[in-house]
Amino acid sequence: MLPERSREQSEQLTRPSPAKEQSYYAGLDIGGTKVAALIADGAGRPLGEAVARTGTRGPEELVASIVTAVYQAAAMAAVAPADLVAAGVGVPGQVNPQTGEVRLAVNLNLQAFPLGEVLAARLGTAVYLENDVRLATIGAYHWLIETEPVTHMAYLSIGTGLATGLILDGRLYRGPNGMAGEIGHLVVQPGGPPCKCGLHGCLETVTSGPAIIRLATAVMTTTEPLTVTAVYQAAEAGHPAARAVVEQVSGYLARAIQLLILSYDVEKVVLGGGVAQMGDRFCQPILRELATMRQRSPLADLMLPDERIAYLPAGYNAGVWGGVMLAREGETGRKG
Amino acid sequence: MLPERSREQSEQLTRPSPAKEQSYYAGLDIGGTKVAALIADGAGRPLGEAVARTGTRGPEELVASIVTAVYQAAAMAAVAPADLVAAGVGVPGQVNPQTGEVRLAVNLNLQAFPLGEVLAARLGTAVYLENDVRLATIGAYHWLIETEPVTHMAYLSIGTGLATGLILDGRLYRGPNGMAGEIGHLVVQPGGPPCKCGLHGCLETVTSGPAIIRLATAVMTTTEPLTVTAVYQAAEAGHPAARAVVEQVSGYLARAIQLLILSYDVEKVVLGGGVAQMGDRFCQPILRELATMRQRSPLADLMLPDERIAYLPAGYNAGVWGGVMLAREGETGRKG
Repeated sequence: MLPERSREQSEQLTRPSPAKEQSYYAGLDIGGTKVAALIADGAGRPLGEAVARTGTRGPEELVASIVTAVYQAAAMAAVAPADLVAAGVGVPGQVNPQTGEVRLAVNLNLQAFPLGEVLAARLGTAVYLENDVRLATIGAYHWLIETEPVTHMAYLSIGTGLATGLILDGRLYRGPNGMAGEIGHLVVQPGGPPCKCGLHGCLETVTSGPAIIRLATAVMTTTEPLTVTAVYQAAEAGHPAARAVVEQVSGYLARAIQLLILSYDVEKVVLGGGVAQMGDRFCQPILRELATMRQRSPLADLMLPDERIAYLPAGYNAGVWGGVMLAREGETGRKG
Repeated sequence: MLPERSREQSEQLTRPSPAKEQSYYAGLDIGGTKVAALIADGAGRPLGEAVARTGTRGPEELVASIVTAVYQAAAMAAVAPADLVAAGVGVPGQVNPQTGEVRLAVNLNLQAFPLGEVLAARLGTAVYLENDVRLATIGAYHWLIETEPVTHMAYLSIGTGLATGLILDGRLYRGPNGMAGEIGHLVVQPGGPPCKCGLHGCLETVTSGPAIIRLATAVMTTTEPLTVTAVYQAAEAGHPAARAVVEQVSGYLARAIQLLILSYDVEKVVLGGGVAQMGDRFCQPILRELATMRQRSPLADLMLPDERIAYLPAGYNAGVWGGVMLAREGETGRKG
């Protein structure tokens, strides 16, 4: 099931003219293993979705897998691909949104590739490229402002890595070099675990999905390979070693949230990504850490109330929704 | 000596009309012990400066000390106080720049006081209020862009406390609640030294002037009370305990700089404040830490080059210059 968006809300976001409701947009989230696609109309109604396996053996295979996902979603939506106005595409790597070039996407085996241009030609639509975390940030923001009139938001994505996207004054903040929000490589434990970036003790090495499994595997004895969910379930059931791991991870994440709020003064931090999909099970230990900080400090009490933290509902794919929003806003901005 | 500003540069900043060169502006920096005042003309030429002791026994005494500083600086500038167009005032605490109210300034013994309004009546000028670190941020930015066309900058103030001011897209970024940049209270050493905010191990407790003295006093044997300069001099002379303190402090500051660059993607981090006035002696150990990070990590090598870090020249008072700039920009904006 796709979450339904009300027509009123969506019109409020970009105020499309009634005629534009018959325009169709594609949102695409390219991951290391799968491409997710969503087709929505100009009023923000979801019409069809699909998932294809990511082609990683070169640009040609990648483009083919993206086109497959779009065509399947369009078929489900009963929309002719030719009727698509624009597509918003999230890429796990460094992109240039102006030129549509993928500078570097290690997991996709891409470097200096004009993905936007190639996709635009193959799909016959305008194509807007963005980094995947930033695209999910746009999706998270549109989810958030359906119920809260927030102008400053941080999206904290916790999955195989950890990264942040920012909305400041109602707009995506990228920074002059497009590097804003790379807090996964902040050194929070000097001399800590080695990170693939070359440093030691980066935030990502003590909080991401692989980090949680590494930490738990070192202290829990199991016959099967651990999953993040299994670690959190064991902690809930009172397993001392699992609890210690969850407490340590949650402490780092509570301080990452503190960092985002103290640095940017954002009104809301929204958690998302593969690990955060556990929802309450994942968030409650973080909220407990924040509650402890509030008890000790009037400043923390002022700046870190529970109301400032939210997580995406499990059924909401922020990436593809961000893609639809980016495509619609790009076209609205271009045409008037 | 006041640093001279070229007329061309200053005109470029806010483009005053030639007639406005005969307008005079006051910049004021209110500290816990002294009020510094600067009078400059519309072209940004410094004309006079003065320092008065801060009156802290109540609002009336405070206002009197500010007026004294302005009058003395005006006398030195041979400018009649009545010819002042506007004053920009930095307050060590929380202010509302829109209403000119000081919400809370503990060191000045002020709470919910309409300082802007009272000063405007006493001085007969427009008065623009700002938090002292933000005012110094404006001053640091104007110093910086005289030589570099930077649009994104963080000012890191290290003195009795530690705080940050931000310029994003060429404008001061305050955040929706005016709390952006409060990174001094980021917990960087869980379970570390107690902070006056109530938490433990805040960045301020391991890097500020008092923190450096506390750390050094614990490990160095001296007959006289230590100063920050004495600790750094001893470290330079090879004193092992002093070197260990300087290395620890510099490590935290290097990671604070990393935080500012990874979070905001600022093009420049400018160091200032009482402790950073030591200049090279203070900055070199930080740059050594950053060099070590660059050697280990291509990402650090990309994002943390020496060119991204600067410190204010010793003779440049960023606070009062920020006050002049704020006053001039306020008036320029108001009059069109």
